[in-house]
Amino acid sequence: MTNESTRVERPQSPALDQILGERFDLLDDGFVRVVDYMGSDASIVQAARVSYGAGTKTVSQDRGLIRYLMRHRHTTPLEMCEIKLHLRVPMDCWRQWIRHRTANVNEYSTRYSVAIDAAQTTAPEQWRAQAANNKQGSEGTLPSEQGRALTESERALHELARRTYDQRLAAGVAREQARKDLPLSTYTEAYWKIDLHNLFHFLSLRMDVHAQEEIRRYAEVIGRKIVARWVPLAWEAFEDYRLGGRFLSRLDREILSCIGRGDAAAAVAKAEEFGWLSQGEKGLKANRERAEFEAKLDELGLAVPWTAESKGNG
Amino acid sequence: MTNESTRVERPQSPALDQILGERFDLLDDGFVRVVDYMGSDASIVQAARVSYGAGTKTVSQDRGLIRYLMRHRHTTPLEMCEIKLHLRVPMDCWRQWIRHRTANVNEYSTRYSVAIDAAQTTAPEQWRAQAANNKQGSEGTLPSEQGRALTESERALHELARRTYDQRLAAGVAREQARKDLPLSTYTEAYWKIDLHNLFHFLSLRMDVHAQEEIRRYAEVIGRKIVARWVPLAWEAFEDYRLGGRFLSRLDREILSCIGRGDAAAAVAKAEEFGWLSQGEKGLKANRERAEFEAKLDELGLAVPWTAESKGNG
Amino acid sequence: MTNESTRVERPQSPALDQILGERFDLLDDGFVRVVDYMGSDASIVQAARVSYGAGTKTVSQDRGLIRYLMRHRHTTPLEMCEIKLHLRVPMDCWRQWIRHRTANVNEYSTRYSVAIDAAQTTAPEQWRAQAANNKQGSEGTLPSEQGRALTESERALHELARRTYDQRLAAGVAREQARKDLPLSTYTEAYWKIDLHNLFHFLSLRMDVHAQEEIRRYAEVIGRKIVARWVPLAWEAFEDYRLGGRFLSRLDREILSCIGRGDAAAAVAKAEEFGWLSQGEKGLKANRERAEFEAKLDELGLAVPWTAESKGNG
Amino acid sequence: MTNESTRVERPQSPALDQILGERFDLLDDGFVRVVDYMGSDASIVQAARVSYGAGTKTVSQDRGLIRYLMRHRHTTPLEMCEIKLHLRVPMDCWRQWIRHRTANVNEYSTRYSVAIDAAQTTAPEQWRAQAANNKQGSEGTLPSEQGRALTESERALHELARRTYDQRLAAGVAREQARKDLPLSTYTEAYWKIDLHNLFHFLSLRMDVHAQEEIRRYAEVIGRKIVARWVPLAWEAFEDYRLGGRFLSRLDREILSCIGRGDAAAAVAKAEEFGWLSQGEKGLKANRERAEFEAKLDELGLAVPWTAESKGNG
Repeated sequence: MTNESTRVERPQSPALDQILGERFDLLDDGFVRVVDYMGSDASIVQAARVSYGAGTKTVSQDRGLIRYLMRHRHTTPLEMCEIKLHLRVPMDCWRQWIRHRTANVNEYSTRYSVAIDAAQTTAPEQWRAQAANNKQGSEGTLPSEQGRALTESERALHELARRTYDQRLAAGVAREQARKDLPLSTYTEAYWKIDLHNLFHFLSLRMDVHAQEEIRRYAEVIGRKIVARWVPLAWEAFEDYRLGGRFLSRLDREILSCIGRGDAAAAVAKAEEFGWLSQGEKGLKANRERAEFEAKLDELGLAVPWTAESKGNG
Repeated sequence: MTNESTRVERPQSPALDQILGERFDLLDDGFVRVVDYMGSDASIVQAARVSYGAGTKTVSQDRGLIRYLMRHRHTTPLEMCEIKLHLRVPMDCWRQWIRHRTANVNEYSTRYSVAIDAAQTTAPEQWRAQAANNKQGSEGTLPSEQGRALTESERALHELARRTYDQRLAAGVAREQARKDLPLSTYTEAYWKIDLHNLFHFLSLRMDVHAQEEIRRYAEVIGRKIVARWVPLAWEAFEDYRLGGRFLSRLDREILSCIGRGDAAAAVAKAEEFGWLSQGEKGLKANRERAEFEAKLDELGLAVPWTAESKGNG
Repeated sequence: MTNESTRVERPQSPALDQILGERFDLLDDGFVRVVDYMGSDASIVQAARVSYGAGTKTVSQDRGLIRYLMRHRHTTPLEMCEIKLHLRVPMDCWRQWIRHRTANVNEYSTRYSVAIDAAQTTAPEQWRAQAANNKQGSEGTLPSEQGRALTESERALHELARRTYDQRLAAGVAREQARKDLPLSTYTEAYWKIDLHNLFHFLSLRMDVHAQEEIRRYAEVIGRKIVARWVPLAWEAFEDYRLGGRFLSRLDREILSCIGRGDAAAAVAKAEEFGWLSQGEKGLKANRERAEFEAKLDELGLAVPWTAESKGNG
Repeated sequence: MTNESTRVERPQSPALDQILGERFDLLDDGFVRVVDYMGSDASIVQAARVSYGAGTKTVSQDRGLIRYLMRHRHTTPLEMCEIKLHLRVPMDCWRQWIRHRTANVNEYSTRYSVAIDAAQTTAPEQWRAQAANNKQGSEGTLPSEQGRALTESERALHELARRTYDQRLAAGVAREQARKDLPLSTYTEAYWKIDLHNLFHFLSLRMDVHAQEEIRRYAEVIGRKIVARWVPLAWEAFEDYRLGGRFLSRLDREILSCIGRGDAAAAVAKAEEFGWLSQGEKGLKANRERAEFEAKLDELGLAVPWTAESKGNG
């Protein structure tokens, strides 16, 4: 480490500079805009080299270093980059968003100002059905005829809610109390500032297929349209070593290694030991962990040992 | 510091043990319950003595040490105490609550479960008027006749909102989407765990007269009925050195010291210099900082120099 | 969720109660003691059920729920448990420890009190050699003859450092300045309080084979002797789904799926594409990511495609 | 709030841009450099106006808003500004620094690289004496003759410590172990990134007269040479409403209000009630809280009632 005193310029991300302030529209009336940022891929490298010494400097070596950091979860250099977004988002979605605690927030105040006159609406073909196998998910959409009725009753509810709000204000009710019955679908706005490490954590949870559709759409835009421009090397590493990865548990590994050495019977015995193969009246009972493992096998192009066996027996 | 290996028992707070699990009812359908805690006044003292050495041990010396810590904002020993509350609170109030980031939270999931069938209602005499001088406050209540109409329209809105929610569920809409138009007044529940230092910070903001009435009522119960039992010495110190204190700015101090040495003219000159005494058509223009200072003078039983003078001139 | 008001008792962990205050000795003069805790396996379940609804109550179902939470990284219920340790640890080790920011700390103050008169010493056979392949690791130990000389010079340095410190104090130098040249090996003590989620994060990093030996030994004791007693179901899940797991990157998965479907040539082509198979003068160049992947293959009992091939070619 | 989509530029602080990268030298071999920043006074205003609505736009109104925020501890808009410093600081000082947890850090790794070959040295006239009345402070300096001897023994200790370190490395000891006896005075370097709210908190504690001299000198430079350039309006407000302020406790206020209405006897009675006036053999016993209050009276130009009285009695 040299004790340099050289004058420096703020690091820049030219591709992000090009879209600074631009609105990415989302849902029926939401948006995301980048309003400021600090740092770039080079800042990650610079911070890592404070820790690890100066090293080499070509772009390909920067890429290698960033990939190494991401692969080994050396996340502190990622904290050296910071981004500030201006968001417009339904309060219901914001309720999930705000649970990410390591961020800075200034939200539009409906205590101080009149609430934003917009609520998220749902088109007839956008009503999602409750998932059968996942108590907190949805799958597919309802028939459009049903959807039309639901959209119509949504409109009526929004109208009554806004009218009631306006009447309260007109009657002189304090804004802090008048707002109490606004629907959760009411839009709010906020400035949201977060470092890259915590943003990647947000994105890994909220770009996930289990995240609710609304917040997932925001996360997709933030990831693919904003972060990918801002810090392209870190984004690529995030896709390769976080988003595109799979975790194998101790149980997964033990069964996989039986499969790897070609011993299907041992694999089945392991699964029995783990309680994955309880028999019900119509074959194997549903078991969530087994299903998750079977999906991993499928991705790897490997056969499921107990299915093969039961077929073999059948 | 001794390297003791003595067996120990968990510190206890007998007065808090007596109310563990008990419900303190709030608003029309909210509550707070203590479900667990860690530490007591003695834990604060113990932690401070890791830092400052063993010292003495009588109760009066414990009290003196805790008061010293609070007075000098040595807050880390307060972090050694932790409390876990079970809350039932309107979502609108929860939106403010959750902004306190240094806490642990598990909230009831309306994605996973059907939303709680209760929304905060307002009695005819409880509608608060918008404050004239404070854009984010309320003062006084509306006449009860107006209140009756507002309460009636609140009832109608709650009814439609719940009916719409139920219809969506009946139609098979996913819970995560069906909830989108629930009113902010809908109750939610949560486990909320926080250390004593951060809880005092929460209380100093939310017991304040500028906090919104709903959250202030929760804060009052948490402070006066729960924390006061749990850690009575720390609570007393909090009342003396935080809640009951006032901050003097550099400007306040400069004027006060003119007053202290009896030089009213110098006090007025300072206030002029600070821009507090701009003249409008009907005397002094409104100035928020001056008004805050005048309130401090009033509490101290001191006359306002510029008022005295203007009276003298009049 | 019921609005229960039932009186409750604080959750207990009987196996942890048995060792409360007991000292686990470490290194030559360090220790760890549990001085307080909050919550148990049951608290995790209770918090999860605030989110997910009441559900079932048998022990086997509690175990299943905790394992589900750990597998899916639903970590907030783990934050409902808290533990407070009393530590004695060399300052050099503490420098690493304190980097875990989400914890509460009171450390012995050498500004206020005379520094602890103990520094970590190294036996002749404990001097570790610099690792050849890992700039920040060690491997093996030095010959005992060399070790004896190093231990002797360590003793001389400790002696001079302490004598110098004592002379400063005797001369009336302020403790805050006298301490400035204490060796990093000087022991310090602290109370350290952390929630279970953040403790698991600490343990996953510090029980890792790449962690420095000194802190790893503390982490091992905290994990295997303390957490395993405190929350046995959560500990078991942590071993199965964190400690004992492996992460497959996108690159790993793509090659593995070639191997899975028996297409070794495709696997090699992928590795080429990823830049893992650059040829040097004596065969494949060293490549850290390839080496990591080969270790994963080895654990799974699978052959390395490029090695097999090169053997085939040889 | 408008839904603007206008392209924006990153906010700049021209006065800070002028010194970006420049080294502020400190102690004998330390420094601070700004390497990056995000936001300016205008960013604070912008964030506050997301919360409070657009309002007015002149510079004097910006100043008024920032002063209002600071006075009322509305600190979230301050979190919208972020700064990154490159530091060189003795490890002993860094041990205090790192206790501020809400910051991002990358420190030079003596596990990975050879330790920096510099330790903080003390000139003969810089040895500070232990304070008589404050167990954790210093006051005055030692006579230069004594100082010369202390400086000489410091030099000898530094020399032996470095020689021992070098011998270990030469013998092949792992860097992670070789460093164990480096003196706390050894310099380290770090990148340290923090938001303005948390930086002000750091500065209010570390610019305080009770902070240790070494860290206070860093804090003074960061505050007066860096923050004052970066966000001049916020800095001015910080000086007026934080640094230059005094806190009056409930006890202080009660006595002051007796003094304010001219009732010295009541003031003395209050002080008695508070236990401030215990008599020892030679008059009033020392009482820290009373002494703190007397200092506040002194600053305000007010006489101490009990001293006046005792004089009257004498």
